[in-house]
Amino acid sequence: MSSELGNNIKVSVFGQSHAPAIGVTVDGLPAGEAVDLDRLQAFLDRRAPGRGDLSTARREADRPRILCGLLDGRTCGAPLAAVIENGDTRSGDYDRLRDVPRPGHADYPAQVRYRGFQDVRGGGHFSGRLTAPLCVAGGVCLQILERRGVRIAAHIRSVGEAEDRPFRELGEDPGTLEALAQAPLPVLEERTGEEMRRLIQEAREAGDSVGGTVECIVQGLPAGLGSGMFGGVDSRLAAALFGIPAVKGVEFGAGFGAARLRGSENNDPYRMESGRVTASSNRAGGVLGGITTGLPLVFRAVFKPTPSIARAQDSVSLSRRENETLAVRGRHDPCIVPRAVPVVEAVAAILALDLLMDPPAVLPETWN
Amino acid sequence: MSSELGNNIKVSVFGQSHAPAIGVTVDGLPAGEAVDLDRLQAFLDRRAPGRGDLSTARREADRPRILCGLLDGRTCGAPLAAVIENGDTRSGDYDRLRDVPRPGHADYPAQVRYRGFQDVRGGGHFSGRLTAPLCVAGGVCLQILERRGVRIAAHIRSVGEAEDRPFRELGEDPGTLEALAQAPLPVLEERTGEEMRRLIQEAREAGDSVGGTVECIVQGLPAGLGSGMFGGVDSRLAAALFGIPAVKGVEFGAGFGAARLRGSENNDPYRMESGRVTASSNRAGGVLGGITTGLPLVFRAVFKPTPSIARAQDSVSLSRRENETLAVRGRHDPCIVPRAVPVVEAVAAILALDLLMDPPAVLPETWN
Amino acid sequence: MSSELGNNIKVSVFGQSHAPAIGVTVDGLPAGEAVDLDRLQAFLDRRAPGRGDLSTARREADRPRILCGLLDGRTCGAPLAAVIENGDTRSGDYDRLRDVPRPGHADYPAQVRYRGFQDVRGGGHFSGRLTAPLCVAGGVCLQILERRGVRIAAHIRSVGEAEDRPFRELGEDPGTLEALAQAPLPVLEERTGEEMRRLIQEAREAGDSVGGTVECIVQGLPAGLGSGMFGGVDSRLAAALFGIPAVKGVEFGAGFGAARLRGSENNDPYRMESGRVTASSNRAGGVLGGITTGLPLVFRAVFKPTPSIARAQDSVSLSRRENETLAVRGRHDPCIVPRAVPVVEAVAAILALDLLMDPPAVLPETWN
Amino acid sequence: MSSELGNNIKVSVFGQSHAPAIGVTVDGLPAGEAVDLDRLQAFLDRRAPGRGDLSTARREADRPRILCGLLDGRTCGAPLAAVIENGDTRSGDYDRLRDVPRPGHADYPAQVRYRGFQDVRGGGHFSGRLTAPLCVAGGVCLQILERRGVRIAAHIRSVGEAEDRPFRELGEDPGTLEALAQAPLPVLEERTGEEMRRLIQEAREAGDSVGGTVECIVQGLPAGLGSGMFGGVDSRLAAALFGIPAVKGVEFGAGFGAARLRGSENNDPYRMESGRVTASSNRAGGVLGGITTGLPLVFRAVFKPTPSIARAQDSVSLSRRENETLAVRGRHDPCIVPRAVPVVEAVAAILALDLLMDPPAVLPETWN
Repeated sequence: MSSELGNNIKVSVFGQSHAPAIGVTVDGLPAGEAVDLDRLQAFLDRRAPGRGDLSTARREADRPRILCGLLDGRTCGAPLAAVIENGDTRSGDYDRLRDVPRPGHADYPAQVRYRGFQDVRGGGHFSGRLTAPLCVAGGVCLQILERRGVRIAAHIRSVGEAEDRPFRELGEDPGTLEALAQAPLPVLEERTGEEMRRLIQEAREAGDSVGGTVECIVQGLPAGLGSGMFGGVDSRLAAALFGIPAVKGVEFGAGFGAARLRGSENNDPYRMESGRVTASSNRAGGVLGGITTGLPLVFRAVFKPTPSIARAQDSVSLSRRENETLAVRGRHDPCIVPRAVPVVEAVAAILALDLLMDPPAVLPETWN
Repeated sequence: MSSELGNNIKVSVFGQSHAPAIGVTVDGLPAGEAVDLDRLQAFLDRRAPGRGDLSTARREADRPRILCGLLDGRTCGAPLAAVIENGDTRSGDYDRLRDVPRPGHADYPAQVRYRGFQDVRGGGHFSGRLTAPLCVAGGVCLQILERRGVRIAAHIRSVGEAEDRPFRELGEDPGTLEALAQAPLPVLEERTGEEMRRLIQEAREAGDSVGGTVECIVQGLPAGLGSGMFGGVDSRLAAALFGIPAVKGVEFGAGFGAARLRGSENNDPYRMESGRVTASSNRAGGVLGGITTGLPLVFRAVFKPTPSIARAQDSVSLSRRENETLAVRGRHDPCIVPRAVPVVEAVAAILALDLLMDPPAVLPETWN
Repeated sequence: MSSELGNNIKVSVFGQSHAPAIGVTVDGLPAGEAVDLDRLQAFLDRRAPGRGDLSTARREADRPRILCGLLDGRTCGAPLAAVIENGDTRSGDYDRLRDVPRPGHADYPAQVRYRGFQDVRGGGHFSGRLTAPLCVAGGVCLQILERRGVRIAAHIRSVGEAEDRPFRELGEDPGTLEALAQAPLPVLEERTGEEMRRLIQEAREAGDSVGGTVECIVQGLPAGLGSGMFGGVDSRLAAALFGIPAVKGVEFGAGFGAARLRGSENNDPYRMESGRVTASSNRAGGVLGGITTGLPLVFRAVFKPTPSIARAQDSVSLSRRENETLAVRGRHDPCIVPRAVPVVEAVAAILALDLLMDPPAVLPETWN
Repeated sequence: MSSELGNNIKVSVFGQSHAPAIGVTVDGLPAGEAVDLDRLQAFLDRRAPGRGDLSTARREADRPRILCGLLDGRTCGAPLAAVIENGDTRSGDYDRLRDVPRPGHADYPAQVRYRGFQDVRGGGHFSGRLTAPLCVAGGVCLQILERRGVRIAAHIRSVGEAEDRPFRELGEDPGTLEALAQAPLPVLEERTGEEMRRLIQEAREAGDSVGGTVECIVQGLPAGLGSGMFGGVDSRLAAALFGIPAVKGVEFGAGFGAARLRGSENNDPYRMESGRVTASSNRAGGVLGGITTGLPLVFRAVFKPTPSIARAQDSVSLSRRENETLAVRGRHDPCIVPRAVPVVEAVAAILALDLLMDPPAVLPETWN
């Protein structure tokens, strides 16, 4: 496994869905940063399951215990470690999965890789539950960034055919972003939210699930972060986003739409505004050549429909080497997208802080 | 800059478009692998400019000199280094760019990051020319993989509105893949190729450019490669692909289309076939939970339209802090997508070999 | 901070001496490996404080709780995480240290680096207590290695002027190594142990402390592990050893003694023995050009005398910018070397397993 | 192989002794730094062979060609790459070595690791010749550091029984350090130099070789660089030094001598001097808890006697599996220590600059 994220701050996630506990370590956080644990909990609550009719019935308090890394409420330069106990597990639900892999899950490839030694209960280390500690790390980073004027927000851009309006590529006003953080179903257009709710309920009733996309905006990052080629903002952020379970695609700015544009449409013309360089559009999504342009970073990730569905599916018995029919029991989200919104924000926050801590591209002339 | 790729084999690209030379080092290649330099050259020729009416008029032989890493035509365990001299440079074309950044290029963010010390000539280190040494590294990896039954091929999936048929998700026959490697414009449907050609010519005549997508398939990889979370095949491959200049999005399998699918449509049902586990479909694109499934790895990258266009564009003078109009001179591709095809294959090959060299997930019981 | 160790298995240590808990994550362990928790505890007990008259009076059970990474007593491929609660802390002892740094400790440089936000209580993250979780990681690796015939043992090579005999450079018999693991004061010559005991008691009575060296042997590693230059066994092992608090020097084989040898004395002549290549001596300490030779890996680390001494010392008040006299209170080891022995073994075990999991230098011809 | 060094600046060395060329890439150098190529050459000349009666008769101009990374004489943020052609090679000298490994060389372990595919000519990638490109990287770093008041110098601390006086642990005056850089045999006491010369000549005449130690001092580094545990200055520097061929031990400050000291002797008492914190001694060698103290960094590396000696030695034939007698032909240094002095300085410079570019431990409150 390689459950580590970041170049300068190292976020390392551990745990399995039904292990005694899950958690995270964050090495390299800047020292002296206040961590408001209530705000952190409020952020985690946005991801937590069991809060409404759209998500899984599994209930977990998701209350992290900070083991170390803080002193008098501030980061102290030592690694921060947080642990979330696993309470409400019903491992019996998963007994058959070691032999009959669930389509769309990591069961089968993990079986091949780990030769049957992997923990299949609840998806093991591949479970979406591992995004809880990721949110602990991201929630801490968010607080550090916000103090410095960096705002990160995400919304459900689409569920099935229902599409929310995109973020304004030159930036949204703070009130809009704040409202998203409070909303149970974070969308920019109320009406779309209703439609999404309906689609998710329909899927649930059909014993099925549905996919969607999350769009994220990072406002307030200075220009000049990141590096060319494989050290680019987009490379590093994409690698992180694909680490979230169920993500199957990532795009920046115009993204796949750029295939249908001409250069004259896709280029963002520069202009001066109050003595500062800006641009009239932001097709680039805030990154050119791997480096931030100073415009908002805008990107989208697509989440596949939850593979755990109630309907019977074709599979195989690995022991008997024959075809099998499988009906997945257990408690599952018919659509993971609403709960994925803070997870995308968390990953964006980790990466944004990581970028801000990159070694300087130009050294000062003296040390003092 | 961070111009390095790979966990086990380390590919490090160096050079600027108008520096004396560009090149690549590859550390960690397995020893004892024969490298056929003629085949390597044939692979590089697919990327080289100046070969027809669809690309830039700049001509470079793109003949790498292997400095070290080979002994009697085989890799010897030491880092392989290759250098390509930069011949046909006309730096005068770019003199004004330090002050007036080209929209859609890295000029402005690089200026902020490197405080004006960066090499702007021909795009400097951000130039697409740096994909030539990347193809040297990838071409070597391709030969190592092919000897072991791994086949990698890419085609132009779309240019503007023109769309080629997708790869068959369960795999293509070898002849089809071989034909792509030989084609000047690698598409699966001849008719689409004609339309693409027309769209590219139209863009050129309009002093403009056009974007597109490249689709790549990797056949023959065993199941069980890669790791969960941030060590996933998709995370690692996406990070690499976003390192190719002009890539703005990456998706695997159903990709962004999965947002519109239900779980019952998106899950790939398993079945036994001649005693082996396989699946009836491959919406996953060959990867679940970051680990290969044994089905072909299928992914797409979108390339934005070349930002260098002949038409006048709005920009700014960084020294005079006022608006400016810019007409980019120089020789440029109206569509980078055809030349990007072998680059995507090269990156896929590097990553595929890197995955195959991952530490074992299960140790043998003895060393002997 | 950068509290991570290993290329293939990633050991990450967290905690501060007086934080709620300390712990470790180990990512990348091979799956399917049985972990005997009783044997692990026995290993940890060798390092634990409060076991006799030679060490600090602080008592900690040092009982790790494994949070995840195991399933039915075997590693499952997911990261292993273990936590040790911090019980017996008396933070009041350390109140003055933020202002008056202890000579020989990290207090002052940490103050400069972390601007006073660091946790000074008990040495914070710089405390020798952090070697407990390191031993958890190492203890697990030791079990994996022993099953494959790799034996690791260390002894106190010297304390002050008292010197134990060196390990036989061609290897010790298993009984000798086993006896070291059982001994309260692990030495090869009983008489030396008595002298060490006396020197440590003398130092304690003088309100002082004393340094020493630990020598470690790794038997059973195959030839051909490691790589040239900065990927060498010696480079990687030295980096790890210098991560143990108080280590000021590391040497392999003849080590610093090689400065006084001629090549004809220092070279290890090869010879055939029962059809296998071996050598008549092992001045190299089992590593040449960064690669194991198949002979035992033999190395030494020097531990400085514990900087915490009862005698008054000169220091400064950082707030008042004037000289100060400091008497360190608290409970401290007059000689850290006996407790360092299992820590060196732990680090050796982590590195040995890490080396064994390196990517292959030569690929098999097929995957099957 | 893993021929890469550094966390923030990545130095990657390539080449084999008898390949067409050797070289280095340096990724991550700060932009805007002037590189004086004449001074760089003068630095390289200190390492170059064939300059006097004490070294090998092999002559190489060692003139690097800078391929990229510079623009108008300054670093431009893109990777710097430099190549040195291999001219005066006599591969015939080494024909037999593939079968009969030289004692004390990497021949045998490399044979096991690379299964006979490695380049044995002149030691291949394991040759001391690879320190030439390392010096190119280090020489560039030295210039960057010197502009900021960091001075690095090394001397021959010992050859055989001949010992130079140690560096004054609180620092040497600049003139002394400058004189070392000019001296053909860099020692602090002239008389010792004479003795060393004599010992080296004696070894040569006996068809033998002799070892020694190099001591290095880094003056002018601020306090507060580096991190705890495995990110420490000592960990990182030791890993780098063990990457230099022939190094068998590394120690900081009192080093192995600390084993014989008491805490009261080894602790460095702090005191105020002109309003600044300093210490009365520097047994620590400038590093405590992995972090610089602001006092000079002082460390030593031991170099084993050159394994290539003219005297007949016992070895084996790997093909015939029987004992053999070997007389190494070719041109070799009877003592590598004098030429190792600038190599140690180069490694120290790379690491010092790398440390200075670490991510900040405390973030500024705003970005502007």
